[in-house]
Amino acid sequence: MNLDKKISMAVIRRLPRYYRYLSDLLKLGITRISSKELSSRMGITASQIRQDLNCFGGFGQQGYGYNVEYLYKEIGNILGVNEAFKIIIIGAGNMGQALANYTNFEKRGFKLIGIFDINPNLIGKKIRDVEIMHLDSLDRFVAENQVDIAILCVPYENTPAVADKVARLGVKGLWNFSPMDLKLPYDVIIENVHLSDSLMVLGYRLNEMRKSQRNKS
Amino acid sequence: MNLDKKISMAVIRRLPRYYRYLSDLLKLGITRISSKELSSRMGITASQIRQDLNCFGGFGQQGYGYNVEYLYKEIGNILGVNEAFKIIIIGAGNMGQALANYTNFEKRGFKLIGIFDINPNLIGKKIRDVEIMHLDSLDRFVAENQVDIAILCVPYENTPAVADKVARLGVKGLWNFSPMDLKLPYDVIIENVHLSDSLMVLGYRLNEMRKSQRNKS
Repeated sequence: MNLDKKISMAVIRRLPRYYRYLSDLLKLGITRISSKELSSRMGITASQIRQDLNCFGGFGQQGYGYNVEYLYKEIGNILGVNEAFKIIIIGAGNMGQALANYTNFEKRGFKLIGIFDINPNLIGKKIRDVEIMHLDSLDRFVAENQVDIAILCVPYENTPAVADKVARLGVKGLWNFSPMDLKLPYDVIIENVHLSDSLMVLGYRLNEMRKSQRNKS
Repeated sequence: MNLDKKISMAVIRRLPRYYRYLSDLLKLGITRISSKELSSRMGITASQIRQDLNCFGGFGQQGYGYNVEYLYKEIGNILGVNEAFKIIIIGAGNMGQALANYTNFEKRGFKLIGIFDINPNLIGKKIRDVEIMHLDSLDRFVAENQVDIAILCVPYENTPAVADKVARLGVKGLWNFSPMDLKLPYDVIIENVHLSDSLMVLGYRLNEMRKSQRNKS
């Protein structure tokens, strides 16, 4: 693996997609695949695939293509699916609870170890054996447990302050569900999930399709 | 507005982001802004901003910048926030319920009018005054109501069949939460939300940051 070269975010963002497609191929019993065929399944060019995978050392053989299981495992390793990242959820409202119940993350190497809220009606309840604790006990919890990632499902107004607190406690990964581009003046990695943005893009594209259909008729 | 030119998906995907930043500026009482200042807030170049907005006719004035409220309203119109898209949710599990409870979508022009599931324990219950109906009544519901968008929160294995059914009934917009790139042989617009992908990218970036910190020390 090439550790010297900085890999672009565009390439990194495609890795989980490769991982998904390879997982599907494995389920279908497909053991090897050419970059051309993978290309037509994924809707990206074969040269893009070769270029992407070359960032991590290649994995393909001229005339053979890719060994699906090998490539799946290697991309899994690159993504850290065997790392068992420890995650906590802050905010056990609707979205926090939905994510806490989402077992798919565990298959990808993310283990939920704590849930925090300030609502007294929620404290002490369990979601899939993980207790909802009061936010006041976050400091101690983070001091006593390795916490890699905090999922922020708190109200919009509270997000910056909660994020700041979590980052000061030393949690290095933040997954933010508030509709804002969270920024912090520390060495932390932040991924913002913008659900409303995605829905608005869908609405826009729907309108455009309807307009173009009206123009045709 | 330029209706002839095809606008790239990259530009379209930035529109909700402009909309968010302009909304924040309005809340801060800022009435006008230069592309340079907007650029530094958003972390994209000023020339990119001018280029993006020019796709829709400009909106800026040399030496004045952008009128925040006007630009906010115009981008809102382009995105269709006043369209009142009618949406239904299929699958009232954790994620479906979380989305049904998410009032933010309504502020952006999306109105939830129906929820569907096959679980007898859920049928008849209400989420924010919207009843959960049996999936068997979907045909009639879509025939009797304008449904613009269906949010698919069904199990992975069932997603393609449910999506196919919904599209055949004439729903033109699909918002898919299953970790797959849903494709359909009809004129439908599909937006796939890949939560696991985002989390995996976060895990990857976290690992890379740690590696580089270890290498430095």
